[in-house]
Amino acid sequence: MDETLSVGVVGAGYWGPNLIRNFGAHPSWDMKWVADTNDVHLSKIGKIYPAIALTKDYRDLLKDAALDAVAIATPVEFHYDMVRAALEAGKHVLVEKPLTSTTEEARRLRELARSRGKTIMVDHTFLYNGAVEHLRQLASEKSFGNIFYIDSVRVNLGLFQNSDVIYDLAPHDVSIINHVLNEYPVSVSANAGACVYSDLHDVAFLTLRYPSGVLAHAHLSWLSPVKIRKLSIAGSNRMAIWDDVEPSEKVKVYDKGVELRTDEESVYRRMVSYRVGDMHAPALDTTEALTKVVNAFHRAITTDERTKATVDDGLAVVAVLEAAHASVVQRGATITLDYPAD
Amino acid sequence: MDETLSVGVVGAGYWGPNLIRNFGAHPSWDMKWVADTNDVHLSKIGKIYPAIALTKDYRDLLKDAALDAVAIATPVEFHYDMVRAALEAGKHVLVEKPLTSTTEEARRLRELARSRGKTIMVDHTFLYNGAVEHLRQLASEKSFGNIFYIDSVRVNLGLFQNSDVIYDLAPHDVSIINHVLNEYPVSVSANAGACVYSDLHDVAFLTLRYPSGVLAHAHLSWLSPVKIRKLSIAGSNRMAIWDDVEPSEKVKVYDKGVELRTDEESVYRRMVSYRVGDMHAPALDTTEALTKVVNAFHRAITTDERTKATVDDGLAVVAVLEAAHASVVQRGATITLDYPAD
Amino acid sequence: MDETLSVGVVGAGYWGPNLIRNFGAHPSWDMKWVADTNDVHLSKIGKIYPAIALTKDYRDLLKDAALDAVAIATPVEFHYDMVRAALEAGKHVLVEKPLTSTTEEARRLRELARSRGKTIMVDHTFLYNGAVEHLRQLASEKSFGNIFYIDSVRVNLGLFQNSDVIYDLAPHDVSIINHVLNEYPVSVSANAGACVYSDLHDVAFLTLRYPSGVLAHAHLSWLSPVKIRKLSIAGSNRMAIWDDVEPSEKVKVYDKGVELRTDEESVYRRMVSYRVGDMHAPALDTTEALTKVVNAFHRAITTDERTKATVDDGLAVVAVLEAAHASVVQRGATITLDYPAD
Amino acid sequence: MDETLSVGVVGAGYWGPNLIRNFGAHPSWDMKWVADTNDVHLSKIGKIYPAIALTKDYRDLLKDAALDAVAIATPVEFHYDMVRAALEAGKHVLVEKPLTSTTEEARRLRELARSRGKTIMVDHTFLYNGAVEHLRQLASEKSFGNIFYIDSVRVNLGLFQNSDVIYDLAPHDVSIINHVLNEYPVSVSANAGACVYSDLHDVAFLTLRYPSGVLAHAHLSWLSPVKIRKLSIAGSNRMAIWDDVEPSEKVKVYDKGVELRTDEESVYRRMVSYRVGDMHAPALDTTEALTKVVNAFHRAITTDERTKATVDDGLAVVAVLEAAHASVVQRGATITLDYPAD
Repeated sequence: MDETLSVGVVGAGYWGPNLIRNFGAHPSWDMKWVADTNDVHLSKIGKIYPAIALTKDYRDLLKDAALDAVAIATPVEFHYDMVRAALEAGKHVLVEKPLTSTTEEARRLRELARSRGKTIMVDHTFLYNGAVEHLRQLASEKSFGNIFYIDSVRVNLGLFQNSDVIYDLAPHDVSIINHVLNEYPVSVSANAGACVYSDLHDVAFLTLRYPSGVLAHAHLSWLSPVKIRKLSIAGSNRMAIWDDVEPSEKVKVYDKGVELRTDEESVYRRMVSYRVGDMHAPALDTTEALTKVVNAFHRAITTDERTKATVDDGLAVVAVLEAAHASVVQRGATITLDYPAD
Repeated sequence: MDETLSVGVVGAGYWGPNLIRNFGAHPSWDMKWVADTNDVHLSKIGKIYPAIALTKDYRDLLKDAALDAVAIATPVEFHYDMVRAALEAGKHVLVEKPLTSTTEEARRLRELARSRGKTIMVDHTFLYNGAVEHLRQLASEKSFGNIFYIDSVRVNLGLFQNSDVIYDLAPHDVSIINHVLNEYPVSVSANAGACVYSDLHDVAFLTLRYPSGVLAHAHLSWLSPVKIRKLSIAGSNRMAIWDDVEPSEKVKVYDKGVELRTDEESVYRRMVSYRVGDMHAPALDTTEALTKVVNAFHRAITTDERTKATVDDGLAVVAVLEAAHASVVQRGATITLDYPAD
Repeated sequence: MDETLSVGVVGAGYWGPNLIRNFGAHPSWDMKWVADTNDVHLSKIGKIYPAIALTKDYRDLLKDAALDAVAIATPVEFHYDMVRAALEAGKHVLVEKPLTSTTEEARRLRELARSRGKTIMVDHTFLYNGAVEHLRQLASEKSFGNIFYIDSVRVNLGLFQNSDVIYDLAPHDVSIINHVLNEYPVSVSANAGACVYSDLHDVAFLTLRYPSGVLAHAHLSWLSPVKIRKLSIAGSNRMAIWDDVEPSEKVKVYDKGVELRTDEESVYRRMVSYRVGDMHAPALDTTEALTKVVNAFHRAITTDERTKATVDDGLAVVAVLEAAHASVVQRGATITLDYPAD
Repeated sequence: MDETLSVGVVGAGYWGPNLIRNFGAHPSWDMKWVADTNDVHLSKIGKIYPAIALTKDYRDLLKDAALDAVAIATPVEFHYDMVRAALEAGKHVLVEKPLTSTTEEARRLRELARSRGKTIMVDHTFLYNGAVEHLRQLASEKSFGNIFYIDSVRVNLGLFQNSDVIYDLAPHDVSIINHVLNEYPVSVSANAGACVYSDLHDVAFLTLRYPSGVLAHAHLSWLSPVKIRKLSIAGSNRMAIWDDVEPSEKVKVYDKGVELRTDEESVYRRMVSYRVGDMHAPALDTTEALTKVVNAFHRAITTDERTKATVDDGLAVVAVLEAAHASVVQRGATITLDYPAD
């Protein structure tokens, strides 16, 4: 039987209730505290979970010496201060994506966590999604061949907020692609538009380059009439598409590929062969990803098992967001990424 | 009854036969000559159209003083020399897209055509497609609102050839977007990958900016497991998607839009309203676009009616291709477009 | 302000909780009692709605003289006894579909309700669905033309239970088609298969004929690998398809039709013209249908407004189910429907 | 090298040109004659195939003693007389579906063909389609489990002609299902509507029962706003759907099934388990089916290889059409099928 750990959740607006529900249902988490500055949020939680302690001041959680961990589901601008305070109070931390607003903040939190011997996990929930797990496995298989490029489209109508479309949506694409490729990008070129509010990006295009040579692209938008959530991976032997809007058969693996011809004329004329075979839609693990997130957070604290979204992974995402913004300012010029060493 | 003009087609490989078929079926064109260096191509044409004169040397067409026009359907590297020779021989010219390999070549052909009083039309066939005609009309209507951005995806598995994916595919997207917006872009930022052959781009991403402020993006690829031909236009009042792979209902117009709220809190918090109404898929003109191209070419010669793809329009496309290549070399840096004046 | 009525729900298994939630949220219903023989069901309700009185014996509701109405969400075999007892106790009744197992039972309940001056409403929820409301309106419009035929497909993998697939699924199709056409069928021919259990139909095909001449067909199955919920209406001027599995654009109206030609040769050769115009996907009322059901039930009791699913409508559905079974036994032979007069 | 046989095609309207093209392209067929009463049809053929002998009188083919075979692509009312005359003249015969208008006619042609030692093949082209070949193989595999039922939908807007919708469309569904199951049905129940012309069925529903217990259903219509060509096979272990309108992935095989539970309560409550696994879309043979038809016809004459559409198979289809009409007259009553013995 696993050791029981206690946790408090800070922020009970949009995402917090999902964390509370999953911590509450987990056999080894004691869902103890919820903090939110908004009374309505708190009273909703109170009705469903009468046993949880409620507070408007998240520092009440930090003062509870018996509390093992906090999960922070507040807007990004609060992350740095809250995570730092939690670590200083000796708590392990699960924090919503993106980890922080700046790479420097992320670097400091990493340093602090290490010095205090505490775990930071970033809630890049999608990394625990059955489709992403399948794609990472697939991409690592020899039969997939060389990966040529990855394209991700994440568009729909809405959600405007103070955070721009890059901070709102790109953490998904960047964390997923980093995870699938098992590497961090070396550079980013980005363009963006501020169509509705002249000082807030609502559509953006990111081009990432990886050490292995893979090219990746993300199209992010709050201004599309239809919702698209589609990630394609083109390999030399096989190709895959994950369409998260489909109710079933979300991942399709195509036994298709491009083959170089080696005879002289073909090389001269750039002629290639195409191989077209079966399509396969694997059954995916449909466990709710967040259930696996809270479980992984527990194991990261109680064992030496790494999560799929460590503080390094979270920092890498923030570095890309920051560089993407710099590239947008420089109208698409490539920004080389530089991940701070420990 | 319209005046009958005679035409010769140069190049009878992939696209030429379509030109021959359409000129042959038009009541006011006399489909007189076909030139191709390949005997197999010529003999195929000969069997279907025994009345057409065949030659392996396109200069035979130019020597025919009675011939009014030539249509050039050869690879782009031959365009400049062939169009120039045709103009010098006093012929009107329909030329496949892209017009030339370089803007400077296009400028010279424009100058020559003007000095000789001859017409150059570029075969940007899609501009005569019923869907594009509908989109241009829609985009010009007040009810569509401000156009925010246009996204075009043109991907499939294959066709490798010496020309890269930008020269192969982007002429479609650029000519269509220019036509729909009725303006030429002011700058381009582009990234591309050479995944299969290290010296040949097979995937590319272009970001264009237009004088009116519209942002446009094109994703071009020869390495997608599924074929996508989709162009989305997001306006402030309505939005439209053209999906050319759909067998019917290719254009869908959404009565959806984003509305700014003007109360203080909404402005502060960047809150907007969304309007979601009906969707409408208009019946489109299904006349073969090329039929309308050969008709427009005839009218451009015999009347003062402008075609939808004049030498200026063709030059503008070439300028974007050239700038896109320059941007790729500079890894996404924005290149300002500069269209040579007459 | 509307008069407040009190209601008790009998059955809190699959559908009952939806009734409880909707009665609970309605401003003029006092959601007072819940009865269920299953302790687990009761305790779940008790946690969410501590103010509701719980009982394992539905007769406790009938004994509450202050209770105005009961909603019965139990398997069909209990409907007759429970509705009768409720009417005899002076309650208005909302009852799950189908109203009863036999037409004779339905007739008796109708008689009883009339003699007691109480309302019976059958919970044919779909009649309050925005798509069905739109289809009924459309079908009544002159511009739709003559209705030729209606086809309904309602298939998926599962749900086996003691009730067969006709009693489980056909109440939806029959009630919807009756409502859209505003008439009851005159005959039914049915075939069915008992593929998994030899004494339980799991796939069935019903052909209905209506007084106006309209032909209707329903394909019902628990054995389809994919879920389909699709109803098509072919009219002489327009045609419509309702695809309830689509996340958006559930109803598509096609400006398509068949036109008779009147010239002699066309009549002789049965040649017709097809008109193909725009397609239109109207924005639909997305209010939860059950919210409108509980509201209509309230209005039926407090005003003289008829519901869309009166006891006569419910009886007509039961008569079709019964006749369909008779036809299945007679291997497809047409059974004439005979609705008992008052 | 195969023996060369000569063939003449009777009827060059809608389908005949496809036969002519395929016989013409086959290395072992000499495409010698074409007969058609319509001059326009003949002259079109003459332009494309100057070497083919043309005639308005099909008896000219029969008089050509050197001609080995005729292919008859005329309306069904001419089949009996033409096939009989061809057999009497010593020709092998490929005849369009359906073989004849009546079972008795088909029986006589079978008898005549046997007595003359000649081959009759019916052009049920779909039996040589890669999707049907895959489905037949699949259905025969033990891993597919017991076949529960087959559903076929073949609807679109149009084609009216003197032949009704059952004779026009059902030959496809019946021949395909017979072939996939490798048996002929024992009974049919059918309902039909005559919506546009009161004496011509334009929508029909057929229920077939097979000796193995399989239930099959076909929905046929000329009055659907959208074109559907979909055949579903539900087996106890796996299920398959063939969607012929899809541009790719036409056949999808679902690793889904229904499993009986054998514990007492499950049996009592009719509870079953569902197994949901991967989906697989096999690459299909995309050779044009008619190419394989003309090849099979050649092999049936020159070897003892049976075609997939023998005169017995063709007769079985006609018997179903005839019985379906009888059932329609009797308003759905089941008609037992009785195939005449040799």
